[in-house]
Amino acid sequence: MNISLENSEKIISAAKAKSEALGVKMNIAVVDGGANLTAFARMDGAWLGSLDISIKKAKTARFFDMNTGVIGELSQPGGALYNIEHSNNGLITFPGGVPIKCPETGNIIGAIGVSGSTVEDDHAVAMAGVEALVK
Amino acid sequence: MNISLENSEKIISAAKAKSEALGVKMNIAVVDGGANLTAFARMDGAWLGSLDISIKKAKTARFFDMNTGVIGELSQPGGALYNIEHSNNGLITFPGGVPIKCPETGNIIGAIGVSGSTVEDDHAVAMAGVEALVK
Amino acid sequence: MNISLENSEKIISAAKAKSEALGVKMNIAVVDGGANLTAFARMDGAWLGSLDISIKKAKTARFFDMNTGVIGELSQPGGALYNIEHSNNGLITFPGGVPIKCPETGNIIGAIGVSGSTVEDDHAVAMAGVEALVK
Amino acid sequence: MNISLENSEKIISAAKAKSEALGVKMNIAVVDGGANLTAFARMDGAWLGSLDISIKKAKTARFFDMNTGVIGELSQPGGALYNIEHSNNGLITFPGGVPIKCPETGNIIGAIGVSGSTVEDDHAVAMAGVEALVK
Repeated sequence: MNISLENSEKIISAAKAKSEALGVKMNIAVVDGGANLTAFARMDGAWLGSLDISIKKAKTARFFDMNTGVIGELSQPGGALYNIEHSNNGLITFPGGVPIKCPETGNIIGAIGVSGSTVEDDHAVAMAGVEALVK
Repeated sequence: MNISLENSEKIISAAKAKSEALGVKMNIAVVDGGANLTAFARMDGAWLGSLDISIKKAKTARFFDMNTGVIGELSQPGGALYNIEHSNNGLITFPGGVPIKCPETGNIIGAIGVSGSTVEDDHAVAMAGVEALVK
Repeated sequence: MNISLENSEKIISAAKAKSEALGVKMNIAVVDGGANLTAFARMDGAWLGSLDISIKKAKTARFFDMNTGVIGELSQPGGALYNIEHSNNGLITFPGGVPIKCPETGNIIGAIGVSGSTVEDDHAVAMAGVEALVK
Repeated sequence: MNISLENSEKIISAAKAKSEALGVKMNIAVVDGGANLTAFARMDGAWLGSLDISIKKAKTARFFDMNTGVIGELSQPGGALYNIEHSNNGLITFPGGVPIKCPETGNIIGAIGVSGSTVEDDHAVAMAGVEALVK
């Protein structure tokens, strides 16, 4: 099962609302189960360099079915996955990418990636997006 | 001036409505004046390979400030721009990419790219998107 | 629904058997519904350059849910999809790529790509692979 | 001498059996002496991002004729091969890639790369694959 466009847009709407509440400008990407883009939005004035980062965060979260920040803890110098970022045409392994689960089955059906502020804000906005589907 | 996210989403909504009226499933991309993605939507069941094509059409239309099909007429064997598609990490030069103009100034502020059906349908959906901003 | 590894390997076995019957040496790739590789085999002595071609054929067939040769008829000079091959990091649009359907539902669950001989042989081997799942 | 497809598939079978014994889901790639893919299998439910990593591990092990983890010890900050991962379109230098030797001559004839679990599991499965050829 892949996430639908309707649900992808619901997630982006919630992520935008959270961004506005935080006073930040974000790039927000949603990918399906095949790690292919379903929907994207760049808020006015958001960092241009965060466009690619948001998409890579969403892909990374789906590639390994976990939050991107978890991978980043393992890819540090001396870590078990040092420099894993060189795979898959470039991973982003700091927070802001989160898998999306089907509310009914719990299966992973896609992922969201957010970039444009601190990694704490990026993650908070990604979580707000994911939670929109649960409600 | 760049296109806003609000107007990018208005364009995508109109393009989706036109796609549904035509009974086709489209990938729809909007880029700003810098040829960078502002919004994207892949309709459920749309061709996966059209994802990249829709983005490349939007970029191509903004790269040269003209409809993509016009470039395709010049890039044929023996034509003035033969194989221009090799530039810019890949252009798409058949119809479906259209520049977006500011309704007030007439300046180009971005472009739309549509892919998922015949080139006639792709172009018709792109035009429906562009016209949403004029109204 | 994505194709399973078991069915991917069944398809590759059938494609190898057909290749041997034809006296040709093939690269054979199977991708899932997300156009991501599930199984691959390069027969001893098969052309090295056909490795990438077989994978690109499989991806192309899934990207557009049709036989690769159909796209090639439209991407010729003067055709509606001229130079579409520049998208998606490179398409291969001559025969040898065929979508794989679920025998029960008829839904496309992946694709096979074959390269190593004439396009007629490539297509025949791809069809033998696809038919293995139907039986 | 290059590894044959028959032996590549024997190695993948053994690696799959070891994966099942460990209760893990792996991407398993085998390359020949030219570091080009001969066979590949992605087990159902294995991480999608490990597809590319398994292939890069196999290539890396053959590129330098040593276990990938050995290179990773030298590519750390301050190390002799710091950031060598930038070469060859991306190396993976943590464990899971192992050269394959000809049982008769001891010459390196290819390599295996495994990704999908901890680096310890990845390496154990790669070793099970390599050992299948020796027996």
